[in-house]
Amino acid sequence: MIDPSECSARDRYQLITSLVVPRPIGWISSWNPDGGANLAPYSFFNAISGSPMLVAVSVGQRRGALKDTLVNLRSRRAFCVNVVTEPLLEAMNASSAEVGAEVDEFALAGLSRAVSDRVHAPYVAECPAVLECEVFKEVDLSPSTNVLVIGEVVGVRLSPALPLTEGTMLVDSGALCAVGRMSGAEYMLPRGTRLLPRP
Amino acid sequence: MIDPSECSARDRYQLITSLVVPRPIGWISSWNPDGGANLAPYSFFNAISGSPMLVAVSVGQRRGALKDTLVNLRSRRAFCVNVVTEPLLEAMNASSAEVGAEVDEFALAGLSRAVSDRVHAPYVAECPAVLECEVFKEVDLSPSTNVLVIGEVVGVRLSPALPLTEGTMLVDSGALCAVGRMSGAEYMLPRGTRLLPRP
Repeated sequence: MIDPSECSARDRYQLITSLVVPRPIGWISSWNPDGGANLAPYSFFNAISGSPMLVAVSVGQRRGALKDTLVNLRSRRAFCVNVVTEPLLEAMNASSAEVGAEVDEFALAGLSRAVSDRVHAPYVAECPAVLECEVFKEVDLSPSTNVLVIGEVVGVRLSPALPLTEGTMLVDSGALCAVGRMSGAEYMLPRGTRLLPRP
Repeated sequence: MIDPSECSARDRYQLITSLVVPRPIGWISSWNPDGGANLAPYSFFNAISGSPMLVAVSVGQRRGALKDTLVNLRSRRAFCVNVVTEPLLEAMNASSAEVGAEVDEFALAGLSRAVSDRVHAPYVAECPAVLECEVFKEVDLSPSTNVLVIGEVVGVRLSPALPLTEGTMLVDSGALCAVGRMSGAEYMLPRGTRLLPRP
């Protein structure tokens, strides 16, 4: 039996991220207060309700400061979740680099930026499935320095190339080919796991 | 663009569960108020913090009534998360059957019940990785009928057969072989997806 209170913060993070797998990736795009764009992946992310459609993302700190994503979600009350599919895996990984708020991760990752219809947030134009979200609620997790942001999906943008299973609103998983997050540099794909070092 | 407010509840559920994938499975065991055992899988589940180690699970209703899991978590303030590994996939699926509170899903699924050290909850003896949790906070999601329960991991039970990556507390993903939830009857495994109809 391992007692988490006797582990280092690094050990606790390694334990939980290697045991709670595979995690869906919330690749979150938002506007900075100054009008620039931000894009970053989070795997402490999931759907939590169908009606209304709610997603939750837990945003940590970076060296004691708020992450740009949290600053933006508090300021703009909106974000997009871009589904990370196999062709976008390298771009997602590139967007996870720790850079200043002035850096546009869309440009860094070679992606095109588009503007949402329903919410005040940009999205990844190359992404075949995007959830346009309004901030629904913020949950304090202290003594954790993470903050849980719950978003309500108010628009779902699907590429016409994505087939639905006949008679349903189920997007075909083989066509979508969404990527799951394991621990370390590992991702799970419908065709098997794959290693991809962080930049 | 799909407007979720113009979709049926079924359509919204199908959209969100086919787009937010793969989801980790929180296979949650708890004691009923009358002393019986409950075991049920939830995929609106994820890790949300490393320090303290927190997990969140969104529990819905069943035909307008509270699910046994939520009744138990409110009453006992404790639960275990049993990691669903490939050899346990059929048993997990069996435990998802909609049965009355008096039915012990451990027996239904042919599993052995063990008693936790740290919290007042049973766990799956056959499971190689178990998170013993205390209820940390409950979050109201209304107008959703789901309730988000946040648990703090106060004990991590790992089988000695599970190797850690040298010099780390990362459990080897190939040895763990955790299963991810897709939509419908589909699961994602490190060796590829697999279909398993619900009972």
